Amino acid sequence: MIPVEIRTDGSVFDQRKLSGKGSEHLSLRLLRMKKMNKTARRKKLLVALEAAGADGFVATHGADVRWLSGFTGSSGAVGVCKGKAVLFTDGRYTEQARAEAAGMRVVIGKGSPGLLATKWLVEQGVRRCGFDSTETTVAAYESMRAAVPGLLRRNFLQAQPGLVARLREHKDAEEIDRMRAAAALGCRVFQESLPRLRSCKTELEFALLLETAAKQAGAEAMSFDTIVASGERSALPHGRASSARLPRKGFVTVDFGVVLDGYCSDMTRTVFLGKSSVRERDVYHSVLEAQQTAVAAVRSGVSCGEVDEAARGVLRKARLDKWFTHSTGHGVGLEIHEGPRVAAGQSQRLETGMVITIEPGVYLPGEFGIRIEDTVVVTETGCEVITSSSPKDWTQL
Amino acid sequence: MIPVEIRTDGSVFDQRKLSGKGSEHLSLRLLRMKKMNKTARRKKLLVALEAAGADGFVATHGADVRWLSGFTGSSGAVGVCKGKAVLFTDGRYTEQARAEAAGMRVVIGKGSPGLLATKWLVEQGVRRCGFDSTETTVAAYESMRAAVPGLLRRNFLQAQPGLVARLREHKDAEEIDRMRAAAALGCRVFQESLPRLRSCKTELEFALLLETAAKQAGAEAMSFDTIVASGERSALPHGRASSARLPRKGFVTVDFGVVLDGYCSDMTRTVFLGKSSVRERDVYHSVLEAQQTAVAAVRSGVSCGEVDEAARGVLRKARLDKWFTHSTGHGVGLEIHEGPRVAAGQSQRLETGMVITIEPGVYLPGEFGIRIEDTVVVTETGCEVITSSSPKDWTQL
Repeated sequence: MIPVEIRTDGSVFDQRKLSGKGSEHLSLRLLRMKKMNKTARRKKLLVALEAAGADGFVATHGADVRWLSGFTGSSGAVGVCKGKAVLFTDGRYTEQARAEAAGMRVVIGKGSPGLLATKWLVEQGVRRCGFDSTETTVAAYESMRAAVPGLLRRNFLQAQPGLVARLREHKDAEEIDRMRAAAALGCRVFQESLPRLRSCKTELEFALLLETAAKQAGAEAMSFDTIVASGERSALPHGRASSARLPRKGFVTVDFGVVLDGYCSDMTRTVFLGKSSVRERDVYHSVLEAQQTAVAAVRSGVSCGEVDEAARGVLRKARLDKWFTHSTGHGVGLEIHEGPRVAAGQSQRLETGMVITIEPGVYLPGEFGIRIEDTVVVTETGCEVITSSSPKDWTQL
Repeated sequence: MIPVEIRTDGSVFDQRKLSGKGSEHLSLRLLRMKKMNKTARRKKLLVALEAAGADGFVATHGADVRWLSGFTGSSGAVGVCKGKAVLFTDGRYTEQARAEAAGMRVVIGKGSPGLLATKWLVEQGVRRCGFDSTETTVAAYESMRAAVPGLLRRNFLQAQPGLVARLREHKDAEEIDRMRAAAALGCRVFQESLPRLRSCKTELEFALLLETAAKQAGAEAMSFDTIVASGERSALPHGRASSARLPRKGFVTVDFGVVLDGYCSDMTRTVFLGKSSVRERDVYHSVLEAQQTAVAAVRSGVSCGEVDEAARGVLRKARLDKWFTHSTGHGVGLEIHEGPRVAAGQSQRLETGMVITIEPGVYLPGEFGIRIEDTVVVTETGCEVITSSSPKDWTQL
């Protein structure tokens, strides 16, 4: 791996991400649509900033930079203030930045992009500049702060934890299209791989088969380390594929996602190998009912806590709620874990365009576990299940 | 993917990493050796702290936590002060933490482990507590700071950018063994895959073949996105494997690494497909000479700048130095990019036990590029090339 440049603020510059995508041909119409979307997103940010008492923002977190500008390089910052927005990056990314951040001013500079953006925002007359304190290191903050002239310095940088992340919870039409495509690819790859599960010796072997199929089908990466948890291990909610042999008889939980065009898919299916018992089928159907009930509860205006309770209530009636040890779901998009949290007691209300997972599970230690997960787009009247092309009914192989 | 817990300080708890490794059987002797190594590392940290005027340290960066304690979970902190060290994590990791951090006190708590460690350090009577400002977010810092009682607060947390990272530059015997094993696995996988390069249609196809072979051979992951840059694309130093078709005639640069037992391997080989020209072979041999000359320059006490110059000087004589656009190498270990930087003008001296890459390259835009990379362990009298089982001579397929 070629060396990276280590900046004076301690941040590390990494040359890995330049993939030459910028040179892809884009039709003018598509380009215009993409440009419009980014402009609309930056306008939303300005509105949120005003509400927070700030008149500028410096974004340095990769997913935020991509969302605001389209730029996918590993080192960039977006400065936003009234009527203006600039993408800052370095010489390695000149062509790529201009192609990806179409319609936006691009400044190629030396040094940390966050620092360049901060200086530019000072020059624009910004007085209160928001930054995401959950994504900015103390060292980066100190160097940005030191770049602000003395009189302004004290109040210039304002911590706005998760400000852009909250805006990203609402996906626009372009994003929803991409998430549909990623979800469809995930389903296709799973359905194609499933018939070969029986011939795999270990969990890892099936994970590798699935991941290879995903990459052959065009996935850029997996959304996270593929979970294949079989037999007693299915009772581990976080059972990453291991060298454990697949059982002749028992559940196999597969939780995985593919990244396509930057967006993550996320789905879980639990299937049964061999001859099952009545109890195994009963518990499966309880989890399925919980999952379907929660999906049916999703609608713009409903609180996240209500959706969680929809799943939990079904499992309570079946006396299984004690074994549902995690929350029902989470937002997903450019990152695998985004807001909102679909968890007990969460008062945040779902809104049209949010994309969330619904994934109740039951984990009986020493016995078995079952989880079923879909990704859904919240709509005015309910939701669109974008992982529906992979069936959820009881599957025995 | 199951939901993660989002902490009040904005940090995200992720359940992905629990792999059940803690349950692996360890012989008592091995366990004792591992325990001794970690104790020695924490002693080194205390010495470095004293020199920096601090009497405690809170480590939260994953690689630092692993290096100090052996713990591999995704959420942990190590608190260190004179004569004492504690690993803090949460209930999901109880068994794993006790197994991995053998011989160390483990505290299972609720909330951010960094916060728990800070509170514990206050209770131990620490007055100046170092933390790594390049790895700690502003939000995490603020919450740690708020946990310090009023009178102490002002001077308690002391930014120590990269303190543990600098200690990690020196690998102990256990680490060098692991790095040798990772490097050997990388070489083996490359040599086994190379005969199939000719039958691959695209760069991505070869990358996938290599990655699949690595995982089948036991690699936990790849060290970074595999670089396969062919034909004109070989002139991109950072050419991640793309859907570009492999040329009938031209260079293919393959830069990749495997992760084994937490440690990253890193190597690059450039091979030729089809019939080559005299010029192509000449440039290859210049890069090879530069690489070999730099490897020969490595020795404890030599500065990083001298090693860089050894490679650069050879290319200067061949009038190719203009096209060697990056530095000669970097440290590698638990992370793919560590110190020291082997770059022009770097005065830092190499020391026995450092593990670095030596990877000069020449990139002729629009024509072709060549890079050759080994990973070496610095010794008293020179170095040990741990990627030597993959030949570097001109290879034509």
